[in-house]
Amino acid sequence: MCTAATYLTKDFYMGRTLDYEFSYGEEIAVMPRNYPIHFHYAGVLKQHYAMIGMAHMADGYPLYYDAANEKGLGMAGLNFVGNAAYAEETKEKENVAQYEFIPWILSRCATVEEAKAALGKMNLTGISFSDQLPSAQLHWIIADKNGCIVVESMKDGFHVYDNPAGVLTNNPPFPQQMFLLNQYRNLSPKQPENQFSKELPLDMYSRGMGALGLPGDLSSTSRFARVAFTKLNSQSGDTEEESVSQFFHILGSVDQQRGCCEVAEGKYEITIYTSCCNTSKGIYYYTTYENPQITAVSMHAEDLEGMEVVSYPMLQKTEIRYQN
Amino acid sequence: MCTAATYLTKDFYMGRTLDYEFSYGEEIAVMPRNYPIHFHYAGVLKQHYAMIGMAHMADGYPLYYDAANEKGLGMAGLNFVGNAAYAEETKEKENVAQYEFIPWILSRCATVEEAKAALGKMNLTGISFSDQLPSAQLHWIIADKNGCIVVESMKDGFHVYDNPAGVLTNNPPFPQQMFLLNQYRNLSPKQPENQFSKELPLDMYSRGMGALGLPGDLSSTSRFARVAFTKLNSQSGDTEEESVSQFFHILGSVDQQRGCCEVAEGKYEITIYTSCCNTSKGIYYYTTYENPQITAVSMHAEDLEGMEVVSYPMLQKTEIRYQN
Amino acid sequence: MCTAATYLTKDFYMGRTLDYEFSYGEEIAVMPRNYPIHFHYAGVLKQHYAMIGMAHMADGYPLYYDAANEKGLGMAGLNFVGNAAYAEETKEKENVAQYEFIPWILSRCATVEEAKAALGKMNLTGISFSDQLPSAQLHWIIADKNGCIVVESMKDGFHVYDNPAGVLTNNPPFPQQMFLLNQYRNLSPKQPENQFSKELPLDMYSRGMGALGLPGDLSSTSRFARVAFTKLNSQSGDTEEESVSQFFHILGSVDQQRGCCEVAEGKYEITIYTSCCNTSKGIYYYTTYENPQITAVSMHAEDLEGMEVVSYPMLQKTEIRYQN
Amino acid sequence: MCTAATYLTKDFYMGRTLDYEFSYGEEIAVMPRNYPIHFHYAGVLKQHYAMIGMAHMADGYPLYYDAANEKGLGMAGLNFVGNAAYAEETKEKENVAQYEFIPWILSRCATVEEAKAALGKMNLTGISFSDQLPSAQLHWIIADKNGCIVVESMKDGFHVYDNPAGVLTNNPPFPQQMFLLNQYRNLSPKQPENQFSKELPLDMYSRGMGALGLPGDLSSTSRFARVAFTKLNSQSGDTEEESVSQFFHILGSVDQQRGCCEVAEGKYEITIYTSCCNTSKGIYYYTTYENPQITAVSMHAEDLEGMEVVSYPMLQKTEIRYQN
Repeated sequence: MCTAATYLTKDFYMGRTLDYEFSYGEEIAVMPRNYPIHFHYAGVLKQHYAMIGMAHMADGYPLYYDAANEKGLGMAGLNFVGNAAYAEETKEKENVAQYEFIPWILSRCATVEEAKAALGKMNLTGISFSDQLPSAQLHWIIADKNGCIVVESMKDGFHVYDNPAGVLTNNPPFPQQMFLLNQYRNLSPKQPENQFSKELPLDMYSRGMGALGLPGDLSSTSRFARVAFTKLNSQSGDTEEESVSQFFHILGSVDQQRGCCEVAEGKYEITIYTSCCNTSKGIYYYTTYENPQITAVSMHAEDLEGMEVVSYPMLQKTEIRYQN
Repeated sequence: MCTAATYLTKDFYMGRTLDYEFSYGEEIAVMPRNYPIHFHYAGVLKQHYAMIGMAHMADGYPLYYDAANEKGLGMAGLNFVGNAAYAEETKEKENVAQYEFIPWILSRCATVEEAKAALGKMNLTGISFSDQLPSAQLHWIIADKNGCIVVESMKDGFHVYDNPAGVLTNNPPFPQQMFLLNQYRNLSPKQPENQFSKELPLDMYSRGMGALGLPGDLSSTSRFARVAFTKLNSQSGDTEEESVSQFFHILGSVDQQRGCCEVAEGKYEITIYTSCCNTSKGIYYYTTYENPQITAVSMHAEDLEGMEVVSYPMLQKTEIRYQN
Repeated sequence: MCTAATYLTKDFYMGRTLDYEFSYGEEIAVMPRNYPIHFHYAGVLKQHYAMIGMAHMADGYPLYYDAANEKGLGMAGLNFVGNAAYAEETKEKENVAQYEFIPWILSRCATVEEAKAALGKMNLTGISFSDQLPSAQLHWIIADKNGCIVVESMKDGFHVYDNPAGVLTNNPPFPQQMFLLNQYRNLSPKQPENQFSKELPLDMYSRGMGALGLPGDLSSTSRFARVAFTKLNSQSGDTEEESVSQFFHILGSVDQQRGCCEVAEGKYEITIYTSCCNTSKGIYYYTTYENPQITAVSMHAEDLEGMEVVSYPMLQKTEIRYQN
Repeated sequence: MCTAATYLTKDFYMGRTLDYEFSYGEEIAVMPRNYPIHFHYAGVLKQHYAMIGMAHMADGYPLYYDAANEKGLGMAGLNFVGNAAYAEETKEKENVAQYEFIPWILSRCATVEEAKAALGKMNLTGISFSDQLPSAQLHWIIADKNGCIVVESMKDGFHVYDNPAGVLTNNPPFPQQMFLLNQYRNLSPKQPENQFSKELPLDMYSRGMGALGLPGDLSSTSRFARVAFTKLNSQSGDTEEESVSQFFHILGSVDQQRGCCEVAEGKYEITIYTSCCNTSKGIYYYTTYENPQITAVSMHAEDLEGMEVVSYPMLQKTEIRYQN
């Protein structure tokens, strides 16, 4: 499935893994300020914040999986199959189709606070982009350097949750994922005290025993706990290289290796790409399953006053650097 | 600490992580066939198999952490603190100092079978290389495309074990690590059957639930289980790129992120480097904590009839590739 | 805290543990059909089903912890601290104070189906019995031989859930407890297949390895999983002795031993009593922490046409039977 | 399989569970001082310490499963299948057949110290009692109020280990069981501190969360950890009733419920009996799967100067005490 995380050093970073058994063809897409966004209900928006992110390009229209705008607000959609349920069209709020939710928010909101206000006025519907691209069952993480929220549209309503952990995976709903972290209260990067019994000379036979009990499998609940532990205990310098490097190590903790998650006979879910967007600077970094070198696309290297989406295909080939 | 693994596709691959809170300064060192190896007890060996590996260079002498020779035999030493115990010098066998154990084996053995025979004739002592470089407490994994063994010198004797899992971490001794895998018999890359109760409609809320119970922390027992599961269930093509890529994903499952293993106030163990040697072709690939791009040194790019060790410092800088 | 379970053989059995660090003084209380029940809102009910259960007797009024009526319907209240929230008095439904919820249901409902209907017409308020006995934060399990439900009154509403597991403990809310059972899908009373790797000769070193991963601590989530596994896989004959014996083994799986759950310096929660009511026959069996012999009170040994509650103090002394 | 434990209050208590899918027919057997013990190698011992314990009576000869002598020394044999290996007969030590190991020790040793000395002079052989009763694969726990040891006869030798935990189950060998307790260092009867992350307001939703991670299944490794945690953290008064009651709660933590451990189609291992011997006073208490009332046989109620073994069948019937 997928995992998202945020990370704050001098700048604010946000990224995600996309885990699946095949790719729809993703590209890093920069949408400049004057690209006319055709919203399903609201018509055309001619001027808006510029944004950069990973998207499936559908006839020139970027269906974003995750993106950030020039103001530093980021947003990602993650699978939420079985729980996502969208509303019917209404006249009382501004209708937004789920496939255009990311550009709708990023085009007009500079901060999480503004996003919260916008979420209060909108109504998320399940209209699909096209017959070929049916509506996806997703939930969303929205974050800036000051805060993080999760948006879940379910049968029992439209929920907006504060997310103090700054991570998201998939099922179950966010409050249950957070509840499950209670089970790991006593895990620590430090070596554990002997609390079992003072009468036994229990040995610390290895470093790293303080987190014994942290789950190591690829289910969404285990990835949530593992990435939260890794992110919340992360230590790094605050230069761009150190920050980006540490961020990829954080999401590396939930990397899906080919063979470990069989979804059908001979078909395996893998981490197709991992992204890290410096939302402060508008640089989108990524790696792919076969290409671990960090590759980057910078929003500000494009003409942000332009009217066309500029997109770059992911570089997926393993590029080995020989020293001799 | 450290983790080692093997992987067989068309070629045979072997590598390891080195996890520690600081580096002694490692280089990729190619030892050609005519470099005179000065053994502590046995004098000078003038001709031998060439080898390549990661070493701390001490006045031109390579103290190998892990290496492979031109015949395809690989060997790595991993921390075994508290359990390693070396023998006194003896007259009945050929004495070998622990610091020269890797070149002693790789210089003369073409296969695991030959290594087994050589191990039967030798006596491993704790003599240190110098006062500045005291004897390390290690155990070793030796492997070729046909087999894998573990060597542990302990108070109760010198042990050579077959290693059907093809992985190694640290404490406890290898037989106990293998015993612990019994606890994970029922883990699988496939989705789990509902065996709990036929009366309950238990949900598969996520992919990847078949390995629930796999440990996710950084202790040596948990890394052993996790890397074994990942390696033994790995699926990849057999080209060089696919094989090497998959190998780094296997060892990525036990990556140590900075902050998750505190070894002293403010000091953190991290994965300093990860290596993958194609022992069939003599190519040594590696990544470092800050440099995820795969970098390579090829044995056969050097003059293997030479008399000097050629070494290359690890490239540790994060090199980002910009697409725009 | 507490654990409740149901068990069906020829008759239907229902019981619970009461776990706490001290006792309020409990008695087994038989309420005959003509005892006038003074309800807080609804006045006096002069005729009703007879019931038997464990109660704190407050000036002759039985504050039931768990009970069953002569029709075979059973009900128990368990701690639900932090989640229970009761409604304000209303004019649209029949108000019921939480302290009288058990007799309100058992006095008028013969089956779970009738209880469901009654629940739809009532409003549960937080009025306390007296200043000395403030309102308890509880949720309830109601069961007969054909079904089982859970009732939770929370901030977000009054919930009635079907309970296919037939067990209940404490926090979190019931749907989350049921969700957590998904984590144990692959646990089984049978020995586990080796799914980890066909290349490893993993050993079944012990019987009972099929449930490795079942939690063994005393938290409410772990007790829920353990008692569910034990109950749903239980095997017994269907005589009264075999059924009752097996039932106490089921709840024995979540027994709280003195010392294992410290709630304040030197204060320990223990299983004060364990009950098993044959709701078909109106016999209430129990054991206490110090008295493991099964003791019983039979509803039908009393005059069920009477007007007074008859109560028996729990026999708590360890009675050892000497054979010589 | 089986679990044994010791417990010290004013007196010293030792007992065990016997877990199996059927019973060989056990009796509580008192062997007086003048019963002539016919040892397989050493001939007849006419005078010795008296002992009491659970035995299979084979033509008047008690094959003890567990017993204690009048000096306060206790001993129990537990399954050790696949690891137990007995020695060949020798002329250099005193040969003892495994089936007579318990009476051989208890007849002559008053303390663990004396037992250690005797173990140094003996040689344990695999001779069976009869063709119908082949040699059992066992290991043994021997304890008095001052100490506890474990005896394991294996292919690699005859081992005597100090046992600071005072518990024993089955495979793997004792040192590995003790090693595994290291995994539970941080478990505690107290509520856990939030060490996961100071940024998260993790909730203590239940009491008893300090031991999250303790295994709850019936495998020998999980029973070892659970009974060790329960025993080492036990709190009780020191009267006979309080001590005995607490002891049965300790072994109750590893009770095997019918249905949870299937050993063959439709066959289930259960806890056939649980014993608790006050070795200071020579009183043998027990419960059975169907009879939870504590039943007792006192050594000193018999003529300890007698020449015949006196035995009592286990009372296995559920005896319910009616209060009305």
